[in-house]
Amino acid sequence: MELKNDTLLKALLRQPVDRTPVWIMRQAGRYLPEYLKTRAEAGSFMNLCQSPELACEVTLQPLRRYDLDAAIIFSDILTIPDAMGLKLFFVTGEGPKFEHPIRSADDIRNLPRPQIDESLGYVMDAVALTRRELGGKVPLIGFSGSPWTLATYMIEGGSSKTFSKAKKLIYQDPQMAHMLLEKLAGTVTDYLNAQIESGAQAVQIFDTWGGALSSQAYKEFSLHYMAQIVSGLKRESEGRKVPVILFSKGCNTQLEALADTGCDALGVDWTITLDEARRRVGDRVALQGNLDPSILLAGKNVIRREVGYTLESFGQGDGHVFNLGHGITPDVDPEHLSALIGAVRELSPGYHS
Amino acid sequence: MELKNDTLLKALLRQPVDRTPVWIMRQAGRYLPEYLKTRAEAGSFMNLCQSPELACEVTLQPLRRYDLDAAIIFSDILTIPDAMGLKLFFVTGEGPKFEHPIRSADDIRNLPRPQIDESLGYVMDAVALTRRELGGKVPLIGFSGSPWTLATYMIEGGSSKTFSKAKKLIYQDPQMAHMLLEKLAGTVTDYLNAQIESGAQAVQIFDTWGGALSSQAYKEFSLHYMAQIVSGLKRESEGRKVPVILFSKGCNTQLEALADTGCDALGVDWTITLDEARRRVGDRVALQGNLDPSILLAGKNVIRREVGYTLESFGQGDGHVFNLGHGITPDVDPEHLSALIGAVRELSPGYHS
Repeated sequence: MELKNDTLLKALLRQPVDRTPVWIMRQAGRYLPEYLKTRAEAGSFMNLCQSPELACEVTLQPLRRYDLDAAIIFSDILTIPDAMGLKLFFVTGEGPKFEHPIRSADDIRNLPRPQIDESLGYVMDAVALTRRELGGKVPLIGFSGSPWTLATYMIEGGSSKTFSKAKKLIYQDPQMAHMLLEKLAGTVTDYLNAQIESGAQAVQIFDTWGGALSSQAYKEFSLHYMAQIVSGLKRESEGRKVPVILFSKGCNTQLEALADTGCDALGVDWTITLDEARRRVGDRVALQGNLDPSILLAGKNVIRREVGYTLESFGQGDGHVFNLGHGITPDVDPEHLSALIGAVRELSPGYHS
Repeated sequence: MELKNDTLLKALLRQPVDRTPVWIMRQAGRYLPEYLKTRAEAGSFMNLCQSPELACEVTLQPLRRYDLDAAIIFSDILTIPDAMGLKLFFVTGEGPKFEHPIRSADDIRNLPRPQIDESLGYVMDAVALTRRELGGKVPLIGFSGSPWTLATYMIEGGSSKTFSKAKKLIYQDPQMAHMLLEKLAGTVTDYLNAQIESGAQAVQIFDTWGGALSSQAYKEFSLHYMAQIVSGLKRESEGRKVPVILFSKGCNTQLEALADTGCDALGVDWTITLDEARRRVGDRVALQGNLDPSILLAGKNVIRREVGYTLESFGQGDGHVFNLGHGITPDVDPEHLSALIGAVRELSPGYHS
């Protein structure tokens, strides 16, 4: 099936495009009434993730409403620890939890490297099904959490504000921390390669909690493993390059180092201007971002103005993918996202020759 | 009363010192059993803040245990909104709340500029009493929240993860946001000047949530008002300069702009090395920080090593105040803080000539 809209893939590789492509982190999410309906039908969030048909359905929902340039497979970053035996569950209002969090060095030693086809086959089925259903309309993005980000949940047993258990491990017993991160890096590599083999046309690594680490610890415990994954990924599939995007939230002091990992593009949050980010990474990578998701709570005229500022901040030339600087929040009016996408479509051609 | 140890004041003004002074954000806090005892006796957190004798007592507690180079007056950043009529209260496990959060433009228009001597006299009494009790041992630091940080609590009604209400205001109705921030900036200026007149020998502005803003919004809605406060502060008292420290957490992309406000020193979190921060601000300001508080959860040998790295990262020369990159957490063993302070005392003279 020929890909009809390859603007995203070209922009991620800094190839010429005639407008700035746009997709939205968490675009299949709780702000959409149709998503809430499907989720309710699924019974639980885990059922939604583990049913290829339902995961495919919610992946496609935002594309029926909006003129988006990509789909991103609906899943959760914590499928990997779940497949490693930690048993993920969700408590409403409390976020994700594990029944068997990592509590000792033995827990790390005994952690299996999962057979992706067996324990995470449902993700590959969802990817393959979604590719078929997309019919070449737009490319499909696969994703994974970064080893460090996955490790924080596995050690803390769920979300955390201070990551004190995970940080205690890296400082007190760096060798065990590295054993855990090494296992995770291998699994993430397998997982993303399997997604690529199943049909993902670009992949993104979400390092949501990289920003909790000190500059030095970040390099040793997060960046290092993302670089290792990048170098282990299948970078071509179906005769096309498969771009790799790294998104390390709150790590703007690390942009140069991230650009040196060999990835194709960097996700950027809103605490740095694209102008400055571009100056710092030069022509090594494309940039993806970076509107503050809260701007979608303001009126449509404000959204349009802020989209304009973001495009202007990146400036003339290729290598920009429009996105938010983090996931869209559940309190957004779906009409407001229309306004954002419309503004990108309307205003961005002026920045490309 | 002559000040016997002026190492902190000198370091903040980048004057020569023979070792790096150290104090710890939230040094009077829940990790200390004697603090928990006094807090229990006070009945509530608000009673502890509002009783000058008890506030003085907990301010002095860490100085009895540790060889610190400063005391910081025990109080809460939300005393100002409380004095403006929002009525602060604390729910255990949920953080601060307001009985009357800001819900409308009229709430902002009607917000009074409090008479500091009346509604915040208890803070000034605590400052004056603590100065007397200190007997010149070390200097006393006064503090306030930044206008933006105070505004987030006032609009959200308490803590927040996304600050969506506060951000909606700045994007949807910037004029009202500026009216609120203008009122807060005036009040913070009065409040800090009153602390200086009551005996505070240095002051720090905590911009805990500046890092939630985009780069542009940060300049307009947070930095601008901190600069306004800095220019309105009494910078000399009792024949000595009163150094002003700005601490904007998560705002490392803004260090240059922060250094241009006219403040004397910048607090730095652990997501940037002091080496890089120093290169960026040059000799305009001193730097304070920046150990990850989680390092205090590791063993004493790790703490000592990380203190060494931090001192080495700043390098040779004056203008460094040792501190954490955020407040000390309740789960820290008090003996571990001893190890930190001991290591700074022992290792830092080598960096000064």
